[in-house]
Amino acid sequence: MHERAIQLWAYFAHDFSPSTVDALKSALDCVRADKAKIALVIPFDVEATSAESSLSDLVISNAPPPAPFGLFAALERAGLDDVRELGVLGAHPATIMAAHRAGVGAIVGIEQPGIERADLLQSQPDVIISPGQFATLDSLRYGRHRLLREQVLLNPGPAIVSDRVHRAMAGPDLCHREREYYSLVNGVREKLLKTAGVDDQWEVALLAGSGTAALEAMTIGSVRVGRKLLVCRNGVYGLRIETIARSHGIDVYPLEAPETEPIDPETVRTALASDSTIDAVAVVHHETTTGLLNPVHEIAIIAQEFETPVMCDAISSLGAERLALQGSGIDLVACSANKCLHGLPGLAFVLLSPFAQQRLRTVPRRSLYLDLLAYLEAHAKSSVPFTPAIPAVYGLDAALDELLEEGLVNRQATYARRMAFLDQELRQIGLVPRVAPAHRSHSVRSLPLPPGIPYDPLHDALKGRGYVIYAGLGDAATTSFRICALGNISIDVLAGFMTCLRQTLLQMGATLPDEASFP
Amino acid sequence: MHERAIQLWAYFAHDFSPSTVDALKSALDCVRADKAKIALVIPFDVEATSAESSLSDLVISNAPPPAPFGLFAALERAGLDDVRELGVLGAHPATIMAAHRAGVGAIVGIEQPGIERADLLQSQPDVIISPGQFATLDSLRYGRHRLLREQVLLNPGPAIVSDRVHRAMAGPDLCHREREYYSLVNGVREKLLKTAGVDDQWEVALLAGSGTAALEAMTIGSVRVGRKLLVCRNGVYGLRIETIARSHGIDVYPLEAPETEPIDPETVRTALASDSTIDAVAVVHHETTTGLLNPVHEIAIIAQEFETPVMCDAISSLGAERLALQGSGIDLVACSANKCLHGLPGLAFVLLSPFAQQRLRTVPRRSLYLDLLAYLEAHAKSSVPFTPAIPAVYGLDAALDELLEEGLVNRQATYARRMAFLDQELRQIGLVPRVAPAHRSHSVRSLPLPPGIPYDPLHDALKGRGYVIYAGLGDAATTSFRICALGNISIDVLAGFMTCLRQTLLQMGATLPDEASFP
Repeated sequence: MHERAIQLWAYFAHDFSPSTVDALKSALDCVRADKAKIALVIPFDVEATSAESSLSDLVISNAPPPAPFGLFAALERAGLDDVRELGVLGAHPATIMAAHRAGVGAIVGIEQPGIERADLLQSQPDVIISPGQFATLDSLRYGRHRLLREQVLLNPGPAIVSDRVHRAMAGPDLCHREREYYSLVNGVREKLLKTAGVDDQWEVALLAGSGTAALEAMTIGSVRVGRKLLVCRNGVYGLRIETIARSHGIDVYPLEAPETEPIDPETVRTALASDSTIDAVAVVHHETTTGLLNPVHEIAIIAQEFETPVMCDAISSLGAERLALQGSGIDLVACSANKCLHGLPGLAFVLLSPFAQQRLRTVPRRSLYLDLLAYLEAHAKSSVPFTPAIPAVYGLDAALDELLEEGLVNRQATYARRMAFLDQELRQIGLVPRVAPAHRSHSVRSLPLPPGIPYDPLHDALKGRGYVIYAGLGDAATTSFRICALGNISIDVLAGFMTCLRQTLLQMGATLPDEASFP
Repeated sequence: MHERAIQLWAYFAHDFSPSTVDALKSALDCVRADKAKIALVIPFDVEATSAESSLSDLVISNAPPPAPFGLFAALERAGLDDVRELGVLGAHPATIMAAHRAGVGAIVGIEQPGIERADLLQSQPDVIISPGQFATLDSLRYGRHRLLREQVLLNPGPAIVSDRVHRAMAGPDLCHREREYYSLVNGVREKLLKTAGVDDQWEVALLAGSGTAALEAMTIGSVRVGRKLLVCRNGVYGLRIETIARSHGIDVYPLEAPETEPIDPETVRTALASDSTIDAVAVVHHETTTGLLNPVHEIAIIAQEFETPVMCDAISSLGAERLALQGSGIDLVACSANKCLHGLPGLAFVLLSPFAQQRLRTVPRRSLYLDLLAYLEAHAKSSVPFTPAIPAVYGLDAALDELLEEGLVNRQATYARRMAFLDQELRQIGLVPRVAPAHRSHSVRSLPLPPGIPYDPLHDALKGRGYVIYAGLGDAATTSFRICALGNISIDVLAGFMTCLRQTLLQMGATLPDEASFP
């Protein structure tokens, strides 16, 4: 938890002027006090000054002039073996470029009289500062007490994603009107259809935005003028669909159930039978409010009898839950890249059956940015209506490769295994999810806060140990909290979390069942 | 242009089974034929088989067991000095992790009987393939003829951004409900206000989406029920605002001017004087259709007389063009991260003056996702209404640091200098921008296609040499093309492009002015 991001800072002899060296001295002392080491790399054709040597914990002599190899030697000498834990300080563009070529984790440009700011900027360091600012920078970004760090995210997305996805995101800058982009998008499209289990008569609209953008696009694209949307509502996300519809002047037939109970498909039948102006049925597959799964397939079978399309919010289910769509009666699915698909936030999409595509053509345009028809029409011409979130598309492409390499069934089994482990561990400390076992999702649990344990101190105590839990929502917003397992989280990590949760609750004075007091 | 992304592939002795080595042989021959080298790294405690040795162009003996240092030695031996040009092939998780620690440019997991797919996935290679797929993979992703590569982007965004921005984007996965995120966003907010030249009475709504998302949010947030929006329209982007308004049932007062002429502020006065139901004035600062600047400041002064707010599309102007907002009469500004601010696509924002913030409270909610009030209310509670595009926010934060380190005035001077160079060079080959010099922007030029030169072959020929130009739009969509200079493009690069453009036009049979024929 309290490790530094950068363990070793290196600089090259003669890169800095004597006055820069002087100005860096106290900064380097602070950095060293925070447990970093400092390396001086001396190229073979220069001699270090005594001031330079006195600043450093280790010295590499006879290195090539600013090139990665002196940096690698410093890393090895420091007993480290991860170049991402090495940082470089440099005043000259050549030094900065050597640091890039070495793939180091931090590249800090130090401004120095005689070197043009513009030239240093051209070499693209991570930041440019004066020598006197280095201690503060190190502490904020790279030190043991920095704010931004890897954490165990137990919130319902964005999830922890793999290095593969992070690396893919940084692919080359592209123009989205070029075939490279269409090639990328066609690959993503194909993999999404595969993941959703549908044939290629289905279409995909990729939107730059959050899951709610996809939800809104889907909602306004499926109800004709003068008709109604039946909204199944047993949580905050069902309510969100209703709010979206109403903000566009679309009439809603609300169908409510208690937050911890799934929607009863028979109530959908009754509603459809009683009101012929219902033009579509909206249902949230996984209500993240409580971690509850609604019976979307049963509802869709009934809606099919009425020839009414079902639109499904699968934002936090696709990837983790079984969602065979082909022929299911579900015609529209909204989803986001950054939950159970393990991509990055900023990208969402809607899957549309042929029926949904037809429906789209009979609905008025209620938005430009969220007009699904514009996306489909552009796609048919190998185009896009608006600038796409290219890095997030790179990320989703890599995440889908990963999912398909793992296998959808295996991915779902991983999710199920994790939650079975979590449920069992939670039970041992007396925490019982608010939703009955039969209706629980495979990624989110809503749990009553133990008596006398307020959320904020519990959250903060766990966060101090590297675990990020999530607040309650909906009816039990203030009396519950949530623990989620999406993304790259192993059972070992969950086991570590449970130990920590148990200890924390005890420290906070909670009364746990007997066996839990003796871990 | 036709360099490989990965120059050297390395693998470790005893990492592969004999049958994997055998299966890799012909793939490695293909890769070598495409000019890659192959390195075998032999840890000190093993001996390589003769099959392993026979596959490689260079051998590193006595290396540490899977660790970065043997890889660095291979890089040096191959005469390379950029670890990003090194790729690693590995069958064991330990090998993959060593490759991560070395910061190499490509990490390929090779599946092999006896090693669990799940374990290999855990180590997070960039891809997992069978040995037989390697030649194809190399050719598609890493070889001389790969599709995705660095190019000179002369389109109006997404722009080429710096390594700094690419690196920042890959920051740690975060939960957006944590203080880390607000700290990040508050920094971005402060830097955006500084860049826009306004005080902190202004607000910023950051949206995951393209510039059009911000444009739509701004449009629907500024016109009250029963009132009208005056839309200044002299290009495709003005028309887009009109389309947005109409799709939400907002009445439009269209004020048209020819595409190559700026809006005459006096026509705005006449319109405002003649129709008291006009509730806001919309104007595009930089019409990317033609590369024309509209006199937003003059229009805003007039609108102020009528106490009517001006909303300005500054999507392709903020950063590159002078846009002093404080007290200007411009109350709303829509912008995107990925144009002249040099951030990444997928993130847009709206700046709102205190007057605009008030107006927002008197306008009905016309969308959920694009409801600016929801963003401002959430921000006031240190929250966000929807999952933000965190990686793109990291990227914008870094891009704004870069901009402020360069200085806004210097950034604008860079843009101006580049376009002055381009205009002069273009004139020499007889290409005169469609917009008169006084109204030209500092990033986009719309040029008539020379007689007999169709766009597509010109585009393709230039693209084959690494330059991406952009099609025409609007009235002259088929008779013009565009050359843009946004993002990280130096005058040297533009000079190279101009040489290439001249040669290409001559090869295509264009008649150029005399002096141009003798470069």
